[in-house]
Amino acid sequence: MIKLHEAFEIVLQRTSRLEAERVPLLQARGRVLAEDAASDMNMPPFPRSSVDGYALIAEDLQRLPARLQVVGTIAAGTYPEFAIASGQAAKIMTGAPVPAGADAVQMIERSRSTSTANEVEILEAASKGANISPFGSEARLGQVVAPVGSFVSPAMVGLLAAVGKREVVVYRAPAVGVIATGDELVEISEQPVAAQIRNSNSYALFAQIESAGARPHVLGIARDQKSQLRELMQRGLQYDLLLLTGGVSMGDLDLVEDVFAELGFKIFFNKVAVKPGKPVVFARAGNTLVFGLPGNPVSAATIFELLVRPAIRKMLGNVVYQNQIVNAHLTQRFVNRSGRENYAPAWTWYENGAYHVRALPSKGSGDVVSYAASNSYLICPIDRTELAAEEQVHAMLRPEFF
Amino acid sequence: MIKLHEAFEIVLQRTSRLEAERVPLLQARGRVLAEDAASDMNMPPFPRSSVDGYALIAEDLQRLPARLQVVGTIAAGTYPEFAIASGQAAKIMTGAPVPAGADAVQMIERSRSTSTANEVEILEAASKGANISPFGSEARLGQVVAPVGSFVSPAMVGLLAAVGKREVVVYRAPAVGVIATGDELVEISEQPVAAQIRNSNSYALFAQIESAGARPHVLGIARDQKSQLRELMQRGLQYDLLLLTGGVSMGDLDLVEDVFAELGFKIFFNKVAVKPGKPVVFARAGNTLVFGLPGNPVSAATIFELLVRPAIRKMLGNVVYQNQIVNAHLTQRFVNRSGRENYAPAWTWYENGAYHVRALPSKGSGDVVSYAASNSYLICPIDRTELAAEEQVHAMLRPEFF
Repeated sequence: MIKLHEAFEIVLQRTSRLEAERVPLLQARGRVLAEDAASDMNMPPFPRSSVDGYALIAEDLQRLPARLQVVGTIAAGTYPEFAIASGQAAKIMTGAPVPAGADAVQMIERSRSTSTANEVEILEAASKGANISPFGSEARLGQVVAPVGSFVSPAMVGLLAAVGKREVVVYRAPAVGVIATGDELVEISEQPVAAQIRNSNSYALFAQIESAGARPHVLGIARDQKSQLRELMQRGLQYDLLLLTGGVSMGDLDLVEDVFAELGFKIFFNKVAVKPGKPVVFARAGNTLVFGLPGNPVSAATIFELLVRPAIRKMLGNVVYQNQIVNAHLTQRFVNRSGRENYAPAWTWYENGAYHVRALPSKGSGDVVSYAASNSYLICPIDRTELAAEEQVHAMLRPEFF
Repeated sequence: MIKLHEAFEIVLQRTSRLEAERVPLLQARGRVLAEDAASDMNMPPFPRSSVDGYALIAEDLQRLPARLQVVGTIAAGTYPEFAIASGQAAKIMTGAPVPAGADAVQMIERSRSTSTANEVEILEAASKGANISPFGSEARLGQVVAPVGSFVSPAMVGLLAAVGKREVVVYRAPAVGVIATGDELVEISEQPVAAQIRNSNSYALFAQIESAGARPHVLGIARDQKSQLRELMQRGLQYDLLLLTGGVSMGDLDLVEDVFAELGFKIFFNKVAVKPGKPVVFARAGNTLVFGLPGNPVSAATIFELLVRPAIRKMLGNVVYQNQIVNAHLTQRFVNRSGRENYAPAWTWYENGAYHVRALPSKGSGDVVSYAASNSYLICPIDRTELAAEEQVHAMLRPEFF
């Protein structure tokens, strides 16, 4: 049985960034640039005023207040046809081009009008270059403004729009197939009877896959028959990633591994010393990476966070794979009887400059009520049977909460 | 000119949670429950084995190894028709119902087979109740498992699926109209000439609105003519929120406030002591909240993070409105000449149990290249002109990065 960090390394080793694709800019949010993006213009394309005020010559402000003749008004979007000479100023709006001759802009708040038409009094001095962004100072024509590997945040969308990228080249988002296995499963619209339970895993995984920026495809429920499982799995091989839930423990009726073998899947590991989630199969078939996740909903969701989400992040071209792990102050004692590294559903909060964490009361590893109330995991190392209250521990944050 | 925290309070005071709506479960991710969700079943609906192993009577394990007669096998999804008597055991799979008579499950790893058919040797004792989740222990029929106000994380999607909610009642996501103003703007597919610049703000805001969980509607560019602006604004009043960029500074051609007045908008503030972003109008018309954002792209994006995203969070029914602010170790001196509270584009990282932050080199408040490379803001208080290297400061994290 390998340790979690070993499983993590194996998953990342076997996972590759997907190929590049060209998408409309507004669909690129959350993706990663697969090509350098260069500016197609000088930014700003002219000396630009960063305030509303008066474009003037700084030397004219040696005696204050300085009376200047206002020779024109420059709105954003208009190009001044005139130049400023000594003793002159032009009223100028934020974002407008500074006229020739002027070497500073003084803010309108530091001026006042006089009784003379076309005249202004400037009340404070300005240094040369004040409130002017020089031509090309932010980016030169042809300069790479966003290198390959850049994450496309909303701010990056804005930059790419500013340099004229209607489309951008990003790494493709993985398509992820989801198959639930087990005779006990019924659709969520049905009322379970006797020993049945609802197939909630496919829903939770759909939401996790979407939140990770990948594309979920739910293939349905495979009953505990090899033929049906094989057929669904073969359909699943059209995706970049295939997730199965259930059928991977030591039970006699756990068919998943059998079918993996029949289909010639290369299995990299089938058990990880982590709680919840011990039975986890990771395999490859052709270009598809396959995870056999536990049937227990908390275990399946947790292994997704620990191993599948990092794989999706790598496929998307990111260079940080793991959910954020922070140091936190443990507020309540925690007992770990599992003999495995334990990721306990927890609540983490930031207060007075530090994270604090406590494990949520749980009725066991299948307690989806408790799990749904958590925003993080308390991490208990494999070699610790107990964490004392007040200890500094590690907490793994779930990205949708922080 | 009001302070940022005052503006924040005014925005939140004037913003209300939207009404509830019923949506399919898979569309509820990222929303907030507007109704308690109760379980329509007992969970688990039977005493459930949490491991693969043998269901047995704990007292039978007083002498070890204990030889037990295996009277049946219980797969998940099948209901045992038999009961366990002293000296007997049933092989049981994870998730399967524990048969009557049995009061513990011992893991398969702690058993071994014998040469006798239908017999097993159990190697370790088990306490009463071991590896069994009792009937109804996680939730009782009718029990509220997710109260109104719960955030619908992927884990919550899983819980709601488990209790049979094909649809859930959540607060509606705001529809947000976006209007850019200014004669200088051209579409991003065009090559700006002379004093023109591309309308990148509408793209950046689209991405920010989406990332905040709201629905963007881009209404286009209004030229600096009252009639056109008024017409677009009136169209914008069909949305819950209306964002304008440009036209809100002190320049002569800044028409936005004029049109606000003509249309009878109630203006709550029109200037905030924050950098970047000083000119910010916040108003209400009918049921629409209106933000007049600066035309400068970095300012517009920053005011979105400081004031608009919190309003969207409240409309969605969340109770935490602000982006996360953490204590961080400043690695480089920072100078604040603005006389305002300064949110400087910055890089924040977590290392050795603490956050570290540095402001990114910037060519001024319009530097979209620098802004696009940031993942956070370094916050400099209004009364500080300088932050020294090694100081403990505050950083505001941008949610897409953490």
